[in-house]
Amino acid sequence: MRLSQFHLRTVKETPADAEVVSHQLMLRAGMIRKLAAGLYTWSPLGLRVLRKVEGIVREEMNRAGAIELLMPSIQPRELWEETGRWEKFGGQLLKIRDRKEAEYCYGPTHEEVITDFARNELSSYKQLPVNFYQIQTKFRDEIRPRFGVMRAREFLMKDAYSFHVDEASLADEYRNMYDTYGRIFTRLGLKFRAVSADSGAIGGSVSHEFQVLAESGEDAIAFSDGSDYTANIELAEAFPPGPRQEAAEALRKVETPTQKTCEDVAALMGIALDRTVKSVAVMGDDGFVLVLVRGDHVVNEVKLRKLAGLADYRLATEAEITTHLGADPGFLGPLQPRADITVIADRSVAAMHDFVVGANENGYHVAGVNWGRDLPEADIVADVRNVVAGDPSPDGKGTLGIARGIEVGHVFQLGRKYAEAMQCTVLDMAGKAVVPLMGCYGIGVSRIVAAAIEQNNDANGILWPEAMAPWQVAVCVINPKNDANVAAAAETLHRELNAAGIDTVLDDRGLRPGQMFADIELIGVPHRVVVSERGLAAGTFEYRARTAADAEQLDREALFARLRT
Amino acid sequence: MRLSQFHLRTVKETPADAEVVSHQLMLRAGMIRKLAAGLYTWSPLGLRVLRKVEGIVREEMNRAGAIELLMPSIQPRELWEETGRWEKFGGQLLKIRDRKEAEYCYGPTHEEVITDFARNELSSYKQLPVNFYQIQTKFRDEIRPRFGVMRAREFLMKDAYSFHVDEASLADEYRNMYDTYGRIFTRLGLKFRAVSADSGAIGGSVSHEFQVLAESGEDAIAFSDGSDYTANIELAEAFPPGPRQEAAEALRKVETPTQKTCEDVAALMGIALDRTVKSVAVMGDDGFVLVLVRGDHVVNEVKLRKLAGLADYRLATEAEITTHLGADPGFLGPLQPRADITVIADRSVAAMHDFVVGANENGYHVAGVNWGRDLPEADIVADVRNVVAGDPSPDGKGTLGIARGIEVGHVFQLGRKYAEAMQCTVLDMAGKAVVPLMGCYGIGVSRIVAAAIEQNNDANGILWPEAMAPWQVAVCVINPKNDANVAAAAETLHRELNAAGIDTVLDDRGLRPGQMFADIELIGVPHRVVVSERGLAAGTFEYRARTAADAEQLDREALFARLRT
Repeated sequence: MRLSQFHLRTVKETPADAEVVSHQLMLRAGMIRKLAAGLYTWSPLGLRVLRKVEGIVREEMNRAGAIELLMPSIQPRELWEETGRWEKFGGQLLKIRDRKEAEYCYGPTHEEVITDFARNELSSYKQLPVNFYQIQTKFRDEIRPRFGVMRAREFLMKDAYSFHVDEASLADEYRNMYDTYGRIFTRLGLKFRAVSADSGAIGGSVSHEFQVLAESGEDAIAFSDGSDYTANIELAEAFPPGPRQEAAEALRKVETPTQKTCEDVAALMGIALDRTVKSVAVMGDDGFVLVLVRGDHVVNEVKLRKLAGLADYRLATEAEITTHLGADPGFLGPLQPRADITVIADRSVAAMHDFVVGANENGYHVAGVNWGRDLPEADIVADVRNVVAGDPSPDGKGTLGIARGIEVGHVFQLGRKYAEAMQCTVLDMAGKAVVPLMGCYGIGVSRIVAAAIEQNNDANGILWPEAMAPWQVAVCVINPKNDANVAAAAETLHRELNAAGIDTVLDDRGLRPGQMFADIELIGVPHRVVVSERGLAAGTFEYRARTAADAEQLDREALFARLRT
Repeated sequence: MRLSQFHLRTVKETPADAEVVSHQLMLRAGMIRKLAAGLYTWSPLGLRVLRKVEGIVREEMNRAGAIELLMPSIQPRELWEETGRWEKFGGQLLKIRDRKEAEYCYGPTHEEVITDFARNELSSYKQLPVNFYQIQTKFRDEIRPRFGVMRAREFLMKDAYSFHVDEASLADEYRNMYDTYGRIFTRLGLKFRAVSADSGAIGGSVSHEFQVLAESGEDAIAFSDGSDYTANIELAEAFPPGPRQEAAEALRKVETPTQKTCEDVAALMGIALDRTVKSVAVMGDDGFVLVLVRGDHVVNEVKLRKLAGLADYRLATEAEITTHLGADPGFLGPLQPRADITVIADRSVAAMHDFVVGANENGYHVAGVNWGRDLPEADIVADVRNVVAGDPSPDGKGTLGIARGIEVGHVFQLGRKYAEAMQCTVLDMAGKAVVPLMGCYGIGVSRIVAAAIEQNNDANGILWPEAMAPWQVAVCVINPKNDANVAAAAETLHRELNAAGIDTVLDDRGLRPGQMFADIELIGVPHRVVVSERGLAAGTFEYRARTAADAEQLDREALFARLRT
């Protein structure tokens, strides 16, 4: 490929509306262009990278024995009614009416369609196990699309669905996919972790996320320094606290005129933050709920939603708080219990003694609070907080640290949820109709591109892992118009590198060297070779790896040897 | 690929709801499965074929210098308002509201999006000419989706858009794409014609369709036996008739009690059909219009819509006909002219004398009618009929024949229509902002698969052209479970053929030969090799081309030589 025949359009300025570095660099490199909220055109440069990711995903899925097919993006409402997800999936489901007023959605995922396919195509255990996959455009109507293709509404996904007659077969394929995902992200050159995860709206029992590690990641990952325990913080169980100690202090009211946070109260009182208790007011199916976590902890929404009546909880309004507790947020607490309030204490709060809570009176907290003595035991005691760095690992081995990651893959054991709802059966060896077990396995193909940049960039631009780079090598030619020999030598080198299977671009645009090098660094080509009059005279090319501080002069043989490794 | 590890599901019975042979065979071969009206899942087998077509299209587009990108399928209403097509495109445009009530459509084509891309990305004549293309899923909300993927609602399309500073550059690229399309359809192994065409809703001046020839084709193509004139019948101009002859007959009323068609009237009267005139009543912008064509001709809707006030014409209702003419359809005619009726005569009708028309009185026609004498000249005389076989070629060379075709490609010179409407400009050499010219070039990738089957099938199934076949060769193994040597020899042959670059599938399902051969013929694999105990003993393989009547016994060397050609 010659850049003069390509469409490359880079920008020097960092776009004002791009918050994260991957979005900034994709815009500056001209990889994507925004069409509307959460909708992006992939430019020729961006598409080259996207296709390289897609190609590796496809190769490894095929190698793993999965079979590619292609389902429609538009799906009829009727199928989603069968699983109950037409209502339950929520606002991300883009609903559509056609000219005949029939209802459809733009598929955000394809469990319903593949299960419909399976119930028609699969009839016997002999056809199982089977794993169908597709690489296809999906749509999720994100309420706040952001970070470019990281959280776009329209995106490219690889989704796979497997069918099994028994648990052992599902477990085998789950392991196969888990290993395949590891190979995919390894080949892509990304630092990643497979973490135990919550299965969320897709459902099922066992699930793992594949997270690309990056400081800017939206997900927090808890990992142990003493074992291979790794889990999304949504799921990571807090190690149970030790037994509660005896009350030592008397109950007393403390004046806290402007202290509305645990941090401020602890500072005012000169005590440790972990002696205070935070009260979070929410509304569940059965009314007003006060959730208590330690001052140094935060509520884990996913864990909370798993409790009875809280699947669809929301934060209480100020009016609801005043009605139930008679005080403003910032001064709330579990004292003066009422029948219409449910108190949920995190396990660590239930184990506290002599603690501090809001007094349910503006401007006051209460200290020396003790369960049993000053207020009844909480209605519910459960693990409802995020783990924090320094917690003991849930498996009892070592201490937890927290890393940040970007979810790029997710594997699920779905069990019979979808097949059962949609009456998908196959005949088993005994000729009896049985409901197959399913697994499902997703990779966010377009998101990987952004995640890779979050993980690999410097002040000058992108640092593509070799396998994802738009080209592996850029041959830059200095003053091609002035010197036909230089231009010809660059052409020859470009041709020979491509013939050797090294994906090479020739920068024959005739730009000044500074401008040319800035572009090549910005778009992240891993290897740069400069062809100049002086170099030709000396029989050398100037070679520089994108990550290296300095350039080297290499003769043709040494150059090829370097680029082939 | 081993069939035992693949998902192949063929059906013996012809599906009742499939009208055309390609739809029937795609269902029987299990290439597609219907999800909902006009929505199909491509099974693993179907997708193999689709990807082969896609691959050839991509290779040739790249070879022609076009640059691939990828635009979103969902497009904002605002862009379509800029070109006026939000309203004008009609019911095929699938309109969507997102959760914020913003309006979008599922792109049926991408002129608006690429022009928006261009006005942001292109600023100088130095960046032109450029041709961007994508291979992407489109949606057209067909009022009557049918014939499987031939007229599906969701389909795969290659669409390309070029930008130019002058007409000469546009003409060059148009020619380049015209030639590229020829190479694509030739490589695909299809019999096709490039025909002059109407540019329809896309607009522009020059356009050609690429039609795959097949008797079942929806399009009629007129071609000359004396020149290379070829045009879609929608566009083909009728050769002007000779001068009108003098009146010879007296006007007379003829009783035609039950004769409502020209054919019946001509039969009753014992005259040639081309002495009668058909009156078609339509409603245009300015009211009631009577369109006259010769009894042996049919009205050409596309030509009619090009006349002033008729772009959106519809057939008149019976009530409207009665109000204006006082008779039922079947007895209509242009006599007793009224000011609120416009009479449009096809050129051949305007040249007639002593002709027969309806009397505007139920049960009667009028014969011996002559222009000028019995009724005023028509308000409008124009070419509004389809050409028919036997007409002189419009270029004056030879006689027209009519072939049937399936449109699989269409190239357009759009001119400045979209760029102007969307204020897309570039600076020319003089530094002046100019509106670029555009071309656009489409190929119906998924439709090609169906069209190829319409053209290439027999009683046993599909006859794939080599380049589109799911596999080039099927190695069928007889009783693999009974004879380990046979199974091993088949495995080896399968591996060696694939290693030689010949895409080969091993049918190791262990089916009875009849069942296995029927499947392989149905799915249209061009070459079949049978590995059997007897063959191995004789040192031969049984080879049969899909199109050959008989099988041959070939040794390994002869087999490879045959398959390599």
